[in-house]
This record gives sequence, structure tokens and C-alpha cells, in this order.
Amino acid sequence: MHPLDEAIDLHPGAPNEWTGATHPAYANMVGPFGGTTAAQLLQAAMLHPQRQGEPVALTVNFAAPVAEGEIQFIARAARTNRSTQHWTIEARQAGEAVATATAVFALRRETWSAGEAVMPSGLPAAATLPSMPALGPIRWPQSYDMRFIEGAFPEAFDEQEQGHSRSCLWVRDEPERPMDFASLAALCDSFFPRIYVRRRRRVLIGTVSLTTYFHADSHLLAQVGTRHVLGVAKALNFRHGYFDQTGEIWSPEGQMLASTHQLVYFKD
Amino acid sequence: MHPLDEAIDLHPGAPNEWTGATHPAYANMVGPFGGTTAAQLLQAAMLHPQRQGEPVALTVNFAAPVAEGEIQFIARAARTNRSTQHWTIEARQAGEAVATATAVFALRRETWSAGEAVMPSGLPAAATLPSMPALGPIRWPQSYDMRFIEGAFPEAFDEQEQGHSRSCLWVRDEPERPMDFASLAALCDSFFPRIYVRRRRRVLIGTVSLTTYFHADSHLLAQVGTRHVLGVAKALNFRHGYFDQTGEIWSPEGQMLASTHQLVYFKD
Repeated sequence: MHPLDEAIDLHPGAPNEWTGATHPAYANMVGPFGGTTAAQLLQAAMLHPQRQGEPVALTVNFAAPVAEGEIQFIARAARTNRSTQHWTIEARQAGEAVATATAVFALRRETWSAGEAVMPSGLPAAATLPSMPALGPIRWPQSYDMRFIEGAFPEAFDEQEQGHSRSCLWVRDEPERPMDFASLAALCDSFFPRIYVRRRRRVLIGTVSLTTYFHADSHLLAQVGTRHVLGVAKALNFRHGYFDQTGEIWSPEGQMLASTHQLVYFKD
Repeated sequence: MHPLDEAIDLHPGAPNEWTGATHPAYANMVGPFGGTTAAQLLQAAMLHPQRQGEPVALTVNFAAPVAEGEIQFIARAARTNRSTQHWTIEARQAGEAVATATAVFALRRETWSAGEAVMPSGLPAAATLPSMPALGPIRWPQSYDMRFIEGAFPEAFDEQEQGHSRSCLWVRDEPERPMDFASLAALCDSFFPRIYVRRRRRVLIGTVSLTTYFHADSHLLAQVGTRHVLGVAKALNFRHGYFDQTGEIWSPEGQMLASTHQLVYFKD
């Protein structure tokens, strides 16, 4: 079983309730990688017997540090319409919320479709680039194969402030795993905090809110399979303890799979 | 009393509960302008006796059409930390959810701050531009003074597809009103659906999810006062019945006040 499948292997309890746990392959400095928590919250709705359609939007608010061990998930369909379904989901430990989430699921139809944002072109192929080496003791980045074209994790926190925080990389699950909504939801949180790239300075950070829009349906995700996808990310604004960053995930063929935004706390 | 203040004038009921109503000045084609609903949901948390700090993130999921008349708001502090507070909020009519929301509030401190996105420069002043005329019978746009530099609402739905959907405009409440979090939250939903600008075609649309990050604190908002702010917006991707659009709100001095993202359903 792939570590991500182990991480999102939730066990049903009372109606609307599931139990999961943190997974050592996705451990962060303190607690788990937020992407895995996002995937678990989404999975609680995915597994729900009332679930209808596929996710189009997911927002996760990280309310408190997640401790190693068991997590309770409560997923409730707040409203079910003909083609959309609105979910509120909560992760709890020791009787207290550690994350809250909302998700929108939809039955999609084929329509006129068009990109407006464009995937960067003329990029070197993933196979020609080195994989990022392990980041010291932090485990979760080793659960991804990241091949940076621009904006890698700084080799040193030398406090040489950069003019921007853009990153561009090929990335896939490590070991390989066919892409699905859970892995895409997790991947959307795999962009390192932009403040590290921008300031090359070690600061305490924590994502407080993460929103992902899924442009891909399961058919398009199946076409991606286990291949690398392209991630691009940048910050918009840093002010008084918070900054936001925005990212895009592209299929190798140039289809936007997801756009993702997050607000991050930092202690300067 | 300003119409927006009337619209967000919620009356307390049972603990965690407030009652509000739709307002004729913010009527849309069917039901109310979503920005006002977002402002009301935020206001339910703002008014809560347990509220601590100022909003930094707000996500609203529009779950069902809001009918004209009374709306119940339920706001619950899911988790209160030393410097952050996580809210779940719901709007209900006839016992059913019509919108769900989450918000993060924070006590902010002064830190290193920097922009990365940049306000467009060399723009004509608001005073030199004409105000957008009324859009037929739709009431809410008349509650804003919009002065377009680029990407105005199409004069005709002539189906001449455009290469992009970017808009840039000066905008303020009409009549004038000093900016606060409620008005900024509403303003973030005032960008017309990008598909109208892109396709110049009348299609049925509905925002399903709206996320706003507040970069401004109340001190910065007070500096903006009643002046026009600059709004820029563009779409990222249109696919199979949904597209996303992203916007920025800038102070006249070039400070980012908010970044805002939404996912919109469309019927082609």
C-alpha cells in the first residue's frame, strides 16, 4: 500500500464520523504535513455514503497543531442540490477542532472550455533534472520527487533577500502513485512557504487557510497517471505577520489541474 | 444609514445566532448580490462577543439561492488560540443552509512587510474616468461607483470571444462609505463573472466558492476612507462547467488591501 493510501485510510465510526491517524512518511518539523491533513479531510467527504460527484473546491483552515496519532473526522453534507453538494468537515483531537474545512462537490458536464493562465513553456523535461535531496530530518518532502527549474528550497538561509519568490518544478508522489483527488489536494500544499524563497531566512511559519480549486475531473487525472506534473507558485503580499501565496498545477500536456491559494502566518 | 450598514445590521437571537435580511440596494438578477451575503456572514463573527482580532481570511460557499427576506446566521468559534481564532458560520433560510463559511481572525503584529504582486502603474485617475452606467434592472452594481480602465462589462453580448478576461477599475461604495472589513469583503465579489468579459455571451453563472485574504488591518482601511480603490481581476481556467477568477484590491497608495479568488459555475 502506498504511504498516501495508508494516510487517507479512514475507518468509519458513528454516522458522519471517521478515524484516521498521522503517518510517519508525511511528518513535518512539528506534526504532520498540512497537505496530508487536507487529503484526509477531503477523503472523509469522498467516503461518505451521501457523497455525490467529484470535488471542485476545498478550503482547509488549520486551527491548531495536529499531534501525532489518531484524528477524528466529521463530515456533514450541508446542502445537496441537483448538480452540487456542499460539505463542512472537521478534524478533531482530544475533543477539540484542529482543522475545519468546507468542500464543494459537483457533477460536471462537458462545456466550452479554455485556459486563460498559460503553462510556462520551453522547460527542461523532468528526466533531465536532478531530484531535490532530502531536507535534513524533515520527512514529508521525501514523499515527493521534486525537480526544480526555478526557486528551489534555499541551499542556505544566508538572508540574501530575493526580488521575488517564484518557483517552478516538476513534482510527483514518491514512490510513484496514480494521481487522484487526494494526492492532488495534498500536492497543492507542497509548495514551500514563499517567505523562505524570498528572504532566505529561517522564520517560524504556519499555513492558516488553504483553498484549492480542482479543474481536473477523474478522467483527466487518470490521463496524468504517475507522471510528474508542473507546479508554479509565487507570493502576492507579505504584511504584519501574514502572507499569501498562489500556485498552479499543470498536466504535462498543459492542462491546469488545480489552482491553489493559501494564507500563511509568519513570525519575523 | 448607509445601505450596506442596513444590510449588515444583524439582530442577536439565541447564543451564536443572528437574524438579518436581504436588502433591495443589493438585489441581483435572482436573490441578493453574493458580496453582501459574504459581508453578513463575516459580520456575524465580527459581532460575536467571543470575537478576538480582525479577519485575515474568509471563505464563503454559496450553497443555494438566497430568497428575498430574512436570513438566520449561526457563528461558532471552532478554536481560539493566542493570536488566531477560527470560525465556522452558516446562513440559513427555512431551516436549510443557503451558505456556509469559515473565517480566520488574528491579532496582528508589525513585522517585515513587502509586496510581491505590484499594482498596475501609470493609470488615469478615477476623477478623469466616467462611472459605469446602470446595468438595466440589476440593482447591486448601482451600489458601487465603478470606473473602468480595462475590461468593462460588455456593451453588447455580441459573442466576439476575447483573448483574455482582465479587468482593471477604480471602485468605491455608492454612496460613499468609509471602508471597513464588511465593505471590503463585499467589494471582493464585485468583479463581474470573467466569462462575460471573455466570451461576451450571456450564460447562466453562479459563484460556488469565494475566498478572500485580508492584507489590510483596520488602521490601513481607515487610511483608505471613502476613496476609490483599484480592482484588478482575471480568470485562470474554464473547464467543464466551472471557472476560477482571481482579483486584487489596491489602495490608492499601492498597498494590497485584499486578494480574492472564486470558483464559478457556468451553464454554456
